[in-house]
Amino acid sequence: MKTSLGAKTAAYPTPVFVVGTYDEKERPNVMTVAWGGICCSDPPCVSIALRKATYTYSNLEERKAFTISIPSTDQLEAADYFGIASGRDEDKFATVGLTPARSELVDAPYVEEFPLVLECRLVRAEELGRHTLFVGEILDVKIDDACLDDEGKPDIERLRPFGWAPLENQYYAMGQKLGRGFSVGKVFEQKGS
Amino acid sequence: MKTSLGAKTAAYPTPVFVVGTYDEKERPNVMTVAWGGICCSDPPCVSIALRKATYTYSNLEERKAFTISIPSTDQLEAADYFGIASGRDEDKFATVGLTPARSELVDAPYVEEFPLVLECRLVRAEELGRHTLFVGEILDVKIDDACLDDEGKPDIERLRPFGWAPLENQYYAMGQKLGRGFSVGKVFEQKGS
Repeated sequence: MKTSLGAKTAAYPTPVFVVGTYDEKERPNVMTVAWGGICCSDPPCVSIALRKATYTYSNLEERKAFTISIPSTDQLEAADYFGIASGRDEDKFATVGLTPARSELVDAPYVEEFPLVLECRLVRAEELGRHTLFVGEILDVKIDDACLDDEGKPDIERLRPFGWAPLENQYYAMGQKLGRGFSVGKVFEQKGS
Repeated sequence: MKTSLGAKTAAYPTPVFVVGTYDEKERPNVMTVAWGGICCSDPPCVSIALRKATYTYSNLEERKAFTISIPSTDQLEAADYFGIASGRDEDKFATVGLTPARSELVDAPYVEEFPLVLECRLVRAEELGRHTLFVGEILDVKIDDACLDDEGKPDIERLRPFGWAPLENQYYAMGQKLGRGFSVGKVFEQKGS
Protein backbone atom coordinates (compact mmCIF):
# COMPACT_ATOMS: atom_id res chain seq x y z
CA MET A 1 0.00 0.00 0.00
CA LYS A 2 1.12 3.51 -0.82
CA THR A 3 0.37 6.71 1.05
CA SER A 4 0.02 10.07 -0.72
CA LEU A 5 2.45 12.74 0.45
CA GLY A 6 0.93 15.45 -1.74
CA ALA A 7 2.66 17.56 -4.41
CA LYS A 8 6.20 17.72 -3.04
CA THR A 9 9.78 18.04 -4.24
CA ALA A 10 10.70 14.45 -3.47
CA ALA A 11 13.69 12.62 -4.95
CA TYR A 12 16.49 10.35 -3.87
CA PRO A 13 19.26 11.26 -4.25
CA THR A 14 19.55 14.98 -4.84
CA PRO A 15 23.03 16.41 -5.43
CA VAL A 16 24.84 18.95 -3.28
CA PHE A 17 26.16 21.40 -5.87
CA VAL A 18 28.19 24.36 -4.65
CA VAL A 19 27.67 27.00 -7.33
CA GLY A 20 30.43 29.60 -7.77
CA THR A 21 29.94 33.06 -9.31
CA TYR A 22 31.54 36.51 -9.22
CA ASP A 23 29.53 39.54 -8.20
CA GLU A 24 29.71 43.02 -9.76
CA LYS A 25 32.67 43.91 -7.55
CA GLU A 26 34.56 40.78 -8.64
CA ARG A 27 33.99 39.17 -5.26
CA PRO A 28 33.75 35.38 -5.40
CA ASN A 29 30.57 33.84 -4.01
CA VAL A 30 29.30 30.32 -3.51
CA MET A 31 25.82 28.96 -2.89
CA THR A 32 24.71 25.40 -2.32
CA VAL A 33 21.86 24.02 -4.42
CA ALA A 34 20.13 20.65 -4.43
CA TRP A 35 17.84 21.38 -7.37
CA GLY A 36 19.85 20.37 -10.43
CA GLY A 37 21.46 17.58 -12.38
CA ILE A 38 23.09 16.59 -15.65
CA CYS A 39 20.73 17.37 -18.54
CA CYS A 40 22.53 16.65 -21.82
CA SER A 41 25.38 14.41 -22.97
CA ASP A 42 26.41 16.33 -26.09
CA PRO A 43 27.18 19.09 -25.53
CA PRO A 44 27.62 18.07 -21.89
CA CYS A 45 25.25 20.23 -19.85
CA VAL A 46 24.19 20.57 -16.25
CA SER A 47 21.19 22.37 -14.80
CA ILE A 48 20.77 24.28 -11.55
CA ALA A 49 17.60 25.94 -10.27
CA LEU A 50 17.76 29.20 -8.34
CA ARG A 51 15.32 31.58 -6.72
CA LYS A 52 15.45 35.17 -7.99
CA ALA A 53 16.13 36.43 -4.48
CA THR A 54 19.53 34.73 -4.31
CA TYR A 55 22.75 36.65 -4.81
CA THR A 56 23.93 33.96 -7.22
CA TYR A 57 20.92 34.58 -9.47
CA SER A 58 21.93 38.15 -10.27
CA ASN A 59 25.61 37.23 -10.56
CA LEU A 60 24.75 34.52 -13.05
CA GLU A 61 22.52 36.79 -15.12
CA GLU A 62 25.39 39.27 -15.33
CA ARG A 63 28.36 36.96 -15.89
CA LYS A 64 26.71 34.15 -17.87
CA ALA A 65 29.08 31.70 -16.22
CA PHE A 66 29.26 29.51 -13.13
CA THR A 67 31.14 26.61 -11.64
CA ILE A 68 29.92 23.65 -9.63
CA SER A 69 32.24 22.42 -6.90
CA ILE A 70 31.31 19.05 -5.42
CA PRO A 71 32.31 18.58 -1.77
CA SER A 72 33.65 15.53 0.00
CA THR A 73 32.07 14.27 3.23
CA ASP A 74 34.80 16.06 5.24
CA GLN A 75 33.52 19.33 3.81
CA LEU A 76 29.86 18.84 4.72
CA GLU A 77 29.68 21.68 7.25
CA ALA A 78 31.10 24.25 4.83
CA ALA A 79 28.81 23.08 2.03
CA ASP A 80 25.79 23.37 4.32
CA TYR A 81 26.88 26.83 5.45
CA PHE A 82 27.07 27.96 1.81
CA GLY A 83 23.34 27.21 1.65
CA ILE A 84 22.53 29.15 4.83
CA ALA A 85 24.44 32.45 4.51
CA SER A 86 24.15 35.02 1.71
CA GLY A 87 27.04 36.46 -0.29
CA ARG A 88 25.32 39.83 -0.04
CA ASP A 89 26.29 39.99 3.61
CA GLU A 90 29.66 38.29 3.84
CA ASP A 91 32.55 36.55 2.13
CA LYS A 92 31.54 32.93 2.66
CA PHE A 93 34.95 31.64 1.57
CA ALA A 94 36.61 33.64 4.35
CA THR A 95 34.05 32.53 6.93
CA VAL A 96 34.67 28.82 6.40
CA GLY A 97 38.39 29.15 5.60
CA LEU A 98 38.30 27.85 2.02
CA THR A 99 39.98 29.26 -1.07
CA PRO A 100 38.35 30.78 -4.17
CA ALA A 101 40.21 29.75 -7.33
CA ARG A 102 39.64 31.61 -10.59
CA SER A 103 38.55 29.40 -13.47
CA GLU A 104 40.74 29.80 -16.53
CA LEU A 105 37.86 28.83 -18.80
CA VAL A 106 34.85 30.73 -17.51
CA ASP A 107 34.27 33.97 -15.61
CA ALA A 108 33.58 32.28 -12.26
CA PRO A 109 35.40 31.02 -9.18
CA TYR A 110 35.41 27.53 -7.69
CA VAL A 111 36.32 26.04 -4.32
CA GLU A 112 39.95 24.99 -4.57
CA GLU A 113 39.72 22.43 -1.76
CA PHE A 114 36.64 20.62 -3.11
CA PRO A 115 37.56 17.46 -5.07
CA LEU A 116 35.50 17.86 -8.26
CA VAL A 117 34.79 21.00 -10.28
CA LEU A 118 32.62 21.66 -13.34
CA GLU A 119 33.27 24.88 -15.29
CA CYS A 120 30.17 26.04 -17.13
CA ARG A 121 28.98 28.76 -19.47
CA LEU A 122 25.34 29.68 -19.24
CA VAL A 123 23.35 28.58 -22.28
CA ARG A 124 19.70 28.70 -21.18
CA ALA A 125 17.46 30.16 -18.49
CA GLU A 126 13.84 29.06 -18.04
CA GLU A 127 11.52 30.60 -15.49
CA LEU A 128 9.44 27.83 -13.97
CA GLY A 129 7.87 29.52 -10.94
CA ARG A 130 9.61 30.01 -7.64
CA HIS A 131 12.81 28.77 -9.31
CA THR A 132 14.50 29.54 -12.62
CA LEU A 133 16.23 26.65 -14.32
CA PHE A 134 19.68 27.57 -15.60
CA VAL A 135 21.46 25.26 -18.03
CA GLY A 136 25.23 25.44 -18.33
CA GLU A 137 27.45 23.82 -20.90
CA ILE A 138 30.24 21.99 -19.09
CA LEU A 139 33.51 23.16 -20.66
CA ASP A 140 35.79 21.16 -18.39
CA VAL A 141 35.77 18.91 -15.34
CA LYS A 142 38.66 18.98 -12.90
CA ILE A 143 39.36 16.43 -10.20
CA ASP A 144 41.81 16.29 -7.30
CA ASP A 145 44.69 13.95 -8.07
CA ALA A 146 44.09 12.36 -4.67
CA CYS A 147 40.68 11.15 -5.94
CA LEU A 148 42.14 9.19 -8.86
CA ASP A 149 42.83 5.48 -8.54
CA ASP A 150 46.09 3.77 -9.50
CA GLU A 151 45.02 3.74 -13.14
CA GLY A 152 44.24 7.45 -13.11
CA LYS A 153 40.46 7.00 -13.04
CA PRO A 154 38.02 8.83 -10.74
CA ASP A 155 37.39 6.80 -7.57
CA ILE A 156 34.20 7.53 -5.66
CA GLU A 157 35.58 5.90 -2.52
CA ARG A 158 38.38 8.48 -2.42
CA LEU A 159 36.14 11.37 -3.45
CA ARG A 160 33.44 10.45 -0.89
CA PRO A 161 30.59 12.62 -2.16
CA PHE A 162 27.26 12.88 -0.39
CA GLY A 163 23.65 13.60 -1.26
CA TRP A 164 20.67 15.24 0.35
CA ALA A 165 17.18 13.91 1.01
CA PRO A 166 14.64 16.73 0.71
CA LEU A 167 11.80 14.78 2.34
CA GLU A 168 13.90 14.26 5.48
CA ASN A 169 16.20 17.31 5.16
CA GLN A 170 19.15 14.99 5.77
CA TYR A 171 22.54 14.64 4.17
CA TYR A 172 23.57 11.06 3.65
CA ALA A 173 26.72 9.24 2.64
CA MET A 174 27.28 7.25 -0.50
CA GLY A 175 30.03 5.15 -1.87
CA GLN A 176 29.44 1.42 -1.39
CA LYS A 177 29.50 -0.06 -4.87
CA LEU A 178 26.43 -2.07 -5.88
CA GLY A 179 27.23 -2.97 -9.48
CA ARG A 180 27.98 -1.64 -12.94
CA GLY A 181 25.49 0.29 -15.05
CA PHE A 182 24.10 -1.33 -18.22
CA SER A 183 25.40 -4.58 -16.79
CA VAL A 184 23.74 -5.89 -13.61
CA GLY A 185 20.37 -5.83 -15.41
CA LYS A 186 21.58 -8.28 -18.04
CA VAL A 187 20.37 -11.13 -15.83
CA PHE A 188 16.99 -10.45 -17.45
CA GLU A 189 18.21 -10.52 -21.06
CA GLN A 190 17.29 -14.11 -21.83
CA LYS A 191 13.77 -13.55 -20.56
CA GLY A 192 13.36 -10.42 -22.64
CA SER A 193 14.50 -11.86 -25.96
CA MET B 1 46.59 19.56 -7.63
CA LYS B 2 43.74 18.98 -10.01
CA THR B 3 43.70 17.04 -13.26
CA SER B 4 41.47 17.99 -16.20
CA LEU B 5 39.08 15.26 -17.32
CA GLY B 6 37.78 17.28 -20.28
CA ALA B 7 34.19 18.29 -21.02
CA LYS B 8 32.26 15.43 -19.44
CA THR B 9 28.93 14.70 -17.80
CA ALA B 10 30.34 14.40 -14.30
CA ALA B 11 28.31 14.65 -11.11
CA TYR B 12 27.90 12.92 -7.78
CA PRO B 13 25.30 11.74 -7.15
CA THR B 14 23.04 11.29 -10.13
CA PRO B 15 19.57 9.85 -9.53
CA VAL B 16 18.16 6.61 -10.91
CA PHE B 17 14.74 7.69 -12.15
CA VAL B 18 12.50 5.04 -13.72
CA VAL B 19 10.26 7.00 -16.08
CA GLY B 20 6.84 5.51 -16.86
CA THR B 21 4.76 6.32 -19.96
CA TYR B 22 2.04 4.75 -22.10
CA ASP B 23 2.59 4.16 -25.81
CA GLU B 24 0.02 4.66 -28.57
CA LYS B 25 -1.41 1.18 -27.96
CA GLU B 26 -1.85 1.90 -24.25
CA ARG B 27 1.06 -0.37 -23.37
CA PRO B 28 2.95 0.68 -20.25
CA ASN B 29 6.67 1.32 -20.66
CA VAL B 30 9.49 2.25 -18.32
CA MET B 31 12.96 3.65 -18.99
CA THR B 32 15.72 4.46 -16.54
CA VAL B 33 17.34 7.89 -16.69
CA ALA B 34 20.16 9.44 -14.70
CA TRP B 35 19.96 12.88 -16.31
CA GLY B 36 17.42 14.77 -14.22
CA GLY B 37 16.56 16.29 -10.88
CA ILE B 38 14.20 18.53 -8.98
CA CYS B 39 14.04 21.94 -10.67
CA CYS B 40 11.40 24.06 -8.93
CA SER B 41 9.81 24.20 -5.48
CA ASP B 42 6.57 25.96 -6.40
CA PRO B 43 5.01 24.52 -8.40
CA PRO B 44 7.03 21.42 -7.52
CA CYS B 45 8.76 20.33 -10.73
CA VAL B 46 11.23 17.66 -11.78
CA SER B 47 13.30 17.45 -14.96
CA ILE B 48 14.34 14.45 -17.02
CA ALA B 49 16.51 14.49 -20.15
CA LEU B 50 15.84 12.04 -22.98
CA ARG B 51 17.30 11.27 -26.38
CA LYS B 52 14.88 11.52 -29.29
CA ALA B 53 15.60 7.93 -30.26
CA THR B 54 14.04 6.56 -27.07
CA TYR B 55 10.56 5.07 -27.03
CA THR B 56 9.75 7.16 -23.96
CA TYR B 57 10.46 10.36 -25.89
CA SER B 58 7.64 9.79 -28.38
CA ASN B 59 5.28 8.51 -25.67
CA LEU B 60 5.91 11.64 -23.66
CA GLU B 61 5.37 13.96 -26.61
CA GLU B 62 2.03 12.26 -27.23
CA ARG B 63 0.71 11.85 -23.69
CA LYS B 64 2.19 14.93 -22.01
CA ALA B 65 2.49 12.93 -18.80
CA PHE B 66 4.96 10.68 -17.04
CA THR B 67 5.75 9.16 -13.68
CA ILE B 68 9.05 8.65 -11.91
CA SER B 69 9.36 5.48 -9.84
CA ILE B 70 12.37 5.38 -7.53
CA PRO B 71 13.73 1.90 -6.86
CA SER B 72 15.12 0.40 -3.67
CA THR B 73 18.50 -1.35 -3.61
CA ASP B 74 16.74 -4.74 -3.87
CA GLN B 75 15.36 -3.62 -7.24
CA LEU B 76 18.71 -2.58 -8.75
CA GLU B 77 18.79 -5.26 -11.45
CA ALA B 78 15.33 -4.42 -12.76
CA ALA B 79 16.09 -0.70 -12.75
CA ASP B 80 19.30 -1.31 -14.70
CA TYR B 81 17.46 -3.53 -17.17
CA PHE B 82 14.94 -0.74 -17.80
CA GLY B 83 17.90 1.30 -19.06
CA ILE B 84 19.19 -1.46 -21.35
CA ALA B 85 16.11 -2.81 -23.17
CA SER B 86 13.66 -0.83 -25.35
CA GLY B 87 9.90 -0.77 -24.95
CA ARG B 88 9.65 -0.93 -28.74
CA ASP B 89 10.76 -4.54 -28.60
CA GLU B 90 9.27 -5.94 -25.44
CA ASP B 91 7.12 -5.46 -22.36
CA LYS B 92 9.81 -4.65 -19.81
CA PHE B 93 7.41 -5.03 -16.89
CA ALA B 94 6.71 -8.63 -17.92
CA THR B 95 10.39 -9.41 -18.45
CA VAL B 96 11.41 -8.42 -14.93
CA GLY B 97 8.18 -9.55 -13.26
CA LEU B 98 7.03 -6.18 -11.95
CA THR B 99 3.55 -4.62 -12.09
CA PRO B 100 2.43 -1.53 -14.04
CA ALA B 101 -0.05 0.52 -12.00
CA ARG B 102 -2.18 3.19 -13.67
CA SER B 103 -1.83 6.64 -12.15
CA GLU B 104 -5.16 8.15 -11.17
CA LEU B 105 -3.80 11.65 -11.67
CA VAL B 106 -1.87 11.55 -14.94
CA ASP B 107 -1.99 9.49 -18.12
CA ALA B 108 1.01 7.31 -17.25
CA PRO B 109 1.87 4.09 -15.44
CA TYR B 110 4.28 3.57 -12.54
CA VAL B 111 6.04 0.58 -11.01
CA GLU B 112 3.80 -0.67 -8.23
CA GLU B 113 6.62 -2.42 -6.35
CA PHE B 114 8.98 0.58 -6.28
CA PRO B 115 8.80 2.49 -3.00
CA LEU B 116 8.46 6.11 -4.18
CA VAL B 117 6.46 7.48 -7.10
CA LEU B 118 6.13 10.99 -8.58
CA GLU B 119 3.17 11.65 -10.87
CA CYS B 120 3.90 14.43 -13.34
CA ARG B 121 2.26 16.40 -16.11
CA LEU B 122 4.58 17.72 -18.80
CA VAL B 123 4.97 21.49 -18.68
CA ARG B 124 8.09 22.26 -20.73
CA ALA B 125 10.41 20.67 -23.31
CA GLU B 126 13.76 22.23 -24.24
CA GLU B 127 16.02 20.79 -26.91
CA LEU B 128 19.59 21.07 -25.70
CA GLY B 129 21.46 18.86 -28.16
CA ARG B 130 21.67 15.09 -27.90
CA HIS B 131 19.10 15.31 -25.10
CA THR B 132 15.84 17.17 -24.68
CA LEU B 133 15.08 18.43 -21.19
CA PHE B 134 11.51 17.72 -20.13
CA VAL B 135 10.07 19.46 -17.09
CA GLY B 136 7.13 17.90 -15.29
CA GLU B 137 4.97 19.41 -12.60
CA ILE B 138 4.74 16.96 -9.71
CA LEU B 139 1.04 16.52 -8.94
CA ASP B 140 1.51 13.94 -6.21
CA VAL B 141 4.15 11.81 -4.49
CA LYS B 142 3.28 8.35 -3.22
CA ILE B 143 5.37 6.28 -0.86
CA ASP B 144 5.15 2.67 0.34
CA ASP B 145 3.78 2.48 3.85
CA ALA B 146 6.72 0.20 4.68
CA CYS B 147 9.08 3.15 4.07
CA LEU B 148 7.45 5.39 6.67
CA ASP B 149 8.85 5.57 10.18
CA ASP B 150 6.85 5.22 13.38
CA GLU B 151 5.77 8.87 13.09
CA GLY B 152 4.60 8.41 9.50
CA LYS B 153 7.56 10.24 7.95
CA PRO B 154 9.63 9.00 4.99
CA ASP B 155 12.66 7.02 6.20
CA ILE B 156 15.59 6.73 3.82
CA GLU B 157 16.96 3.75 5.70
CA ARG B 158 13.79 1.79 4.93
CA LEU B 159 13.51 3.09 1.38
CA ARG B 160 17.19 2.36 0.61
CA PRO B 161 17.57 4.33 -2.63
CA PHE B 162 20.77 4.31 -4.67
CA GLY B 163 22.57 6.59 -7.07
CA TRP B 164 24.77 6.26 -10.12
CA ALA B 165 28.23 7.62 -10.80
CA PRO B 166 28.58 8.46 -14.50
CA LEU B 167 32.36 8.82 -14.40
CA GLU B 168 32.72 5.25 -13.09
CA ASN B 169 29.47 3.80 -14.49
CA GLN B 170 28.74 2.38 -11.04
CA TYR B 171 25.66 2.24 -8.89
CA TYR B 172 26.32 2.96 -5.25
CA ALA B 173 24.41 2.74 -2.01
CA MET B 174 23.33 5.60 0.19
CA GLY B 175 21.61 5.97 3.48
CA GLN B 176 24.05 6.61 6.32
CA LYS B 177 22.92 9.90 7.83
CA LEU B 178 25.53 12.64 8.05
CA GLY B 179 23.54 15.54 9.48
CA ARG B 180 20.61 17.87 8.94
CA GLY B 181 20.43 20.42 6.15
CA PHE B 182 20.54 24.14 7.02
CA SER B 183 21.86 23.00 10.39
CA VAL B 184 25.31 21.35 10.45
CA GLY B 185 26.77 24.46 8.79
CA LYS B 186 25.70 26.67 11.67
CA VAL B 187 29.04 25.97 13.35
CA PHE B 188 30.32 28.81 11.14
CA GLU B 189 27.62 31.31 12.05
CA GLN B 190 29.56 33.18 14.72
CA LYS B 191 32.49 33.65 12.36
CA GLY B 192 30.23 34.92 9.59
CA SER B 193 28.35 37.51 11.59
